[in-house]
Order: sequence, then C-alpha cells, then structure tokens
Amino acid sequence: MAGVLVSQRVAEVYGKRIIDIAKRCNRVLDLVLSNPSALPSANVCNELEIAFYSRDVWEGCDKTFINPETRAFFAAADAAAKLRWLQVTSAGADLAIYQPSLQRGVRVTTSSGSNAEPMAQTVTWAVLSFARATQHWMAAQRRREWSPLISPDLPRDLGGKNAVIVGTGPIGKSIARLLRALGLNTIGIRRTSAPAEHFDRVTTYDRIDDVLPHAQWLVIACPLTETTQGLIDARRIGLLPRDAHVINVARGEILDEAALIDALSQRRLAGAYLDVFAVEPLPRESPLWDMPNVIITPHNCSASAGNIGRGVDIFLRNLENYLSRRPLENEVGVLAA
Amino acid sequence: MAGVLVSQRVAEVYGKRIIDIAKRCNRVLDLVLSNPSALPSANVCNELEIAFYSRDVWEGCDKTFINPETRAFFAAADAAAKLRWLQVTSAGADLAIYQPSLQRGVRVTTSSGSNAEPMAQTVTWAVLSFARATQHWMAAQRRREWSPLISPDLPRDLGGKNAVIVGTGPIGKSIARLLRALGLNTIGIRRTSAPAEHFDRVTTYDRIDDVLPHAQWLVIACPLTETTQGLIDARRIGLLPRDAHVINVARGEILDEAALIDALSQRRLAGAYLDVFAVEPLPRESPLWDMPNVIITPHNCSASAGNIGRGVDIFLRNLENYLSRRPLENEVGVLAA
Repeated sequence: MAGVLVSQRVAEVYGKRIIDIAKRCNRVLDLVLSNPSALPSANVCNELEIAFYSRDVWEGCDKTFINPETRAFFAAADAAAKLRWLQVTSAGADLAIYQPSLQRGVRVTTSSGSNAEPMAQTVTWAVLSFARATQHWMAAQRRREWSPLISPDLPRDLGGKNAVIVGTGPIGKSIARLLRALGLNTIGIRRTSAPAEHFDRVTTYDRIDDVLPHAQWLVIACPLTETTQGLIDARRIGLLPRDAHVINVARGEILDEAALIDALSQRRLAGAYLDVFAVEPLPRESPLWDMPNVIITPHNCSASAGNIGRGVDIFLRNLENYLSRRPLENEVGVLAA
Repeated sequence: MAGVLVSQRVAEVYGKRIIDIAKRCNRVLDLVLSNPSALPSANVCNELEIAFYSRDVWEGCDKTFINPETRAFFAAADAAAKLRWLQVTSAGADLAIYQPSLQRGVRVTTSSGSNAEPMAQTVTWAVLSFARATQHWMAAQRRREWSPLISPDLPRDLGGKNAVIVGTGPIGKSIARLLRALGLNTIGIRRTSAPAEHFDRVTTYDRIDDVLPHAQWLVIACPLTETTQGLIDARRIGLLPRDAHVINVARGEILDEAALIDALSQRRLAGAYLDVFAVEPLPRESPLWDMPNVIITPHNCSASAGNIGRGVDIFLRNLENYLSRRPLENEVGVLAA
C-alpha cells in the first residue's frame, strides 16, 4: 500500500478520480490528507510515494511568509523516506520549500502551463495600458474631466514594434501569441535557436545584447536559473531604447531593480510593469509604488479561478504517466523535446 | 480647372501625391486650403469638386462644440455648388455637419477602418481590465499595499465566454479578432446572416434578443442608423446575464444610458466601458463618472498617431477611384459587397 499526499479540497473534489486512475494502472493508492492541525503519523508518512502540492495549499504564501498549510504539507513530504514524486503548483521549481525534495532525488514536476493564459492576459493588459495611454483617461475620470488625447499628444501606434520575450515556455508562448495578435513582432530568447510557436524569431541567451537595442517591449517570462539570475542588469537596461517598457512576470532576481529605478527616474526608459520583486511583499518604502508609468501587481498576475483545475489536470495526467512508467510532463531537470 | 478642399497640413504633406494622382488620371486639380481665418472666395468655392475633411481639421470637436477649423471647412464645402464628393474623417456619417452634403446628393465616403485597430485595442484593454480585476491591483498600488487576489475572490477565467459584437464592419471585425485571441466566442450582429471574418457566428438585428441572454460581453460597434438608434434599450439590457459587461464605442444614441445606470446601480450588470454618451462631453454631474466598475473615455478610444495617415491613405485610394470612375471605398448609402 502506497500513499499520495493531497489537500483536503483535492481529496474531496478529485479523490475518486485519483483512486480510479490508480485502479486502471493496477495500483492501490491511499489518499493521505495534508492537515495543518494534525500531521500524519510517522508510519503513514513512511508509506507516502507521491505528493501533490496544489494551488489551494499554496495560496497566501509569499517570498517571506510560508503559510501553516504549506508548512504542514512539506513537514509530511520531507518526512516521507520513500517519496518518489512531488508535483508542485508553480511554473518554476526555484522555491526554497522544494529544494529538500530535489536534493534527495525526489522527481519534481511543475504545473507549468496551468496559469499561462491568465498571465499572458495580464501582460497584454499592461502593454495596452501603456500603449493606449489609459492612465491619462483613468486619472481624468477620477477628476470627472472630459479630456481627450489629441495631437501632438496622441499615443503612438503599437503595431509594428518589437517585443523581446525572455523565455519561450508555455507562459512566453502565450504572451507571444497575444502580443503578435496586437501587431507586435515577437522575438524569443531561449537556450537553443530552434523556432518556437508564436515567435517571429528566436535567439539564444548569449545573443540577447543584439536584440535589446531594438526592443520597445522587453518581457521577462523565463525560469530563474544560473543563466537568468541577474540577466537584465544595469548594462543591459542601458541597451534598451528610451521608449522601451520593461515587464517582469518571472522572478525579481532576474532584473536589477535598483538599476531599473535609476533608468526610470532619469527617463532612460518609458515605463515598467512588475509582478515580481527582489523583496516580496514589495516594501512600503519602495519608490516603485508611486513612480509614474510603473504598474505593480503583487506576484499575482496569474490569479484566475481556473488555474486550480488546470493544475489538477496536469497532476492527474502525470499520475497516469507515473503509474504507467511513462515520461512525466514538466519534470524538473528533464529538458523538453 | 477643378478644386479639392484640404487642410493646410494635408496640402503640405500629401499635396504632391494628390497632384500626381490627378495627373496620372489626366486631370488637373487645384489644392484649395481650408483656413479658419480666410474663407476661399466665391469663385474658388464654385470650382470645388472634391473636399477632404481630414482628422487634423476635426480634432477638438465634440457633440456640442464645432471648432473654427471645421466651421470654416464646411462653410466652404457647403458653398461649393459643384461639389461632387466629400470624404470625412469619421467611421460613421451621422454627424450633423455632414447632413447638408448628403441631402443635396454629394457623394460621401467615410474613413471607416482607419482607426479600427487602436479602437479594438482599447476595447481589449477594457475587457481585460474587468476580466483580470485590475482595478483591485491599481487601487492597492495607490495605497502602497501588497494585496494579492486569492480564493474565493479570484477573477473567473475569461476564455470560453461569449462576446456579442453589434456591427461587423472594420471596427467590429478588429474587436472580434482580438477578443477571439483571448479565447472568447465571438457572435456578430449584422444586417444579413452572411458569415463575417473573425466571428464564430453571426445573426441579424431582428434576432438579437436570442443571443443577449448568453452574452457575458456586449460590445456596441455599429453605425448609428434607424435600425440601431435605441437598439439596446431597457428591455434588452434586462435580457443580459448579471455577470455581463456592456461596452459602447459606437454612438451614445444606440444605448439607453439611464437604463444602463439603473441596471448597474441595482447590480443587474457587472460593469460598463463607455467611450460615447447621450450628451458629450459627459456632464460633470453624471453618476457614471464615479460608479464602481464603470470605465469612461472621452469619445477618444481610437486616439493613435497613425490614424491620420491611414485616413489619408483611404482618401488617396478613393481619389484615384473617383477620377477613374471606379466605385469608391466606404461610400455612404452604398452597401458593401
């Protein structure tokens, strides 16, 4: 008998499907509930083979706060000597709580793709907020003021401009698809120069300096890795044209936040939309909060009711893959074909 | 010798191309400058055959204010006994200043299509503002507050919902293309039930009651005509589901504004984005200005630097059509194929 660690909510809504998939694969799985008020016994932990860290357990965590539900979940998972596979709720596998599992050789899969579409929609909203000068209209509305934009203050056309998108995974691809629909040229930055869907062209990380001078839009949507940590530093920010906007929906560590603030203050950049930061929650004293042309969302740009179900769908597909000894979707450290 | 009435700016930037097109068609055209400080003489007006009311002349006008440039332009055009063709800058031909020309049989063409793309981008921005609950984040940013949306307050997925778009001209089509890219089903309302590009299906004006109960998004983007005046009245607003948003970028006369305000106040509708109003400029005392879930732009959602050039492009193509006795693009009263 082997156990699968899940939240109460996942057990309630999807428990039967988990049991049925196991049955179809000629296995018997016990659902073990992760519960912040009562850890599973040592015996039960010892039987755990699979753990699913779902979005409902994660909600409320940030860079500096781990909620009780998550602490209880990883207390059980980390105590499970026979744990073989952990599926996590995020698109990246860089969070500190995942590292003990990765270090002891537990297979880790992510929910990459489950929130790509809402993230891309938020990025599209931010691009349009800047490109259509909507802040002018919104400020006028708060003053009950009819204030049309006319020459010479008209916003410039968005179509035909270049969007450099760092990362060509599900999130980068969804962003590229929507920005291309807005008439932008989409240039992807990835490990290899193989073409990627929805990108007009791609280039590799070591060639990024070639494309930054032509990027009116720079969108960071890649995993945090040794390659990407500090990738967009002060020098590379300096390569961008003055009418460029920087968007970061990946990880704060990829972008030099102080250098970005400098460039924005000195009007060497047109604006920025940031969902992620060096320190999260973003401290109240950060100058970013009320800089003109800066949009801030609280590491939350993916928020959408459908993400939980999409994450579960990936887990259920992977459960069948795992029990049938097929390759897992989104396995960390295993490069996609 | 025949004259073509244009603005100083059009004469300066495009005058040579106008003369060249005439030459290619074996005609000689005189450029007559529209000038608010000096009307052309009666003799010059009498030679006018063509008039181009370009966007630069129109800028600054609204429903209650006609600027001096526009007054001077139509004083000359309306005095031109031999005027045969007037191209206007708007997508619709319902403005009062166009009516004398239409009534005396001058052919009138519009610039329909020249601003479709920026309009569709503003509509897309508004849809995403509502669907991604961005007002929550923006209000939190103004308070320097880190306030992620989590269950049960997550915005619902946008994909899979229905957008009913009234009008399937260039503006309706551009809106449909972008909303379909966001995963919405696009249903067009038009005169005939012939398919239209970017629409999943279309239906006719007399069948609109059948689709309104399924419309999470109702986008009004049609000309103001006898059919569309008062089309979205209190009864039809009542057919919409409670989670519906209403968007009007066409003309205020198509939507019953008082009934919309009632429905929003009583939470029988989720929100509205309005670019056009019964009275423009929207009076300061209108309750719309600070209703929650209402976005207001000042009949300006198309504002984009490229529109002027796109309008001139249509005029130049039509000039060649006119001089070669070919059908004109966007001719009022002539149904498109």
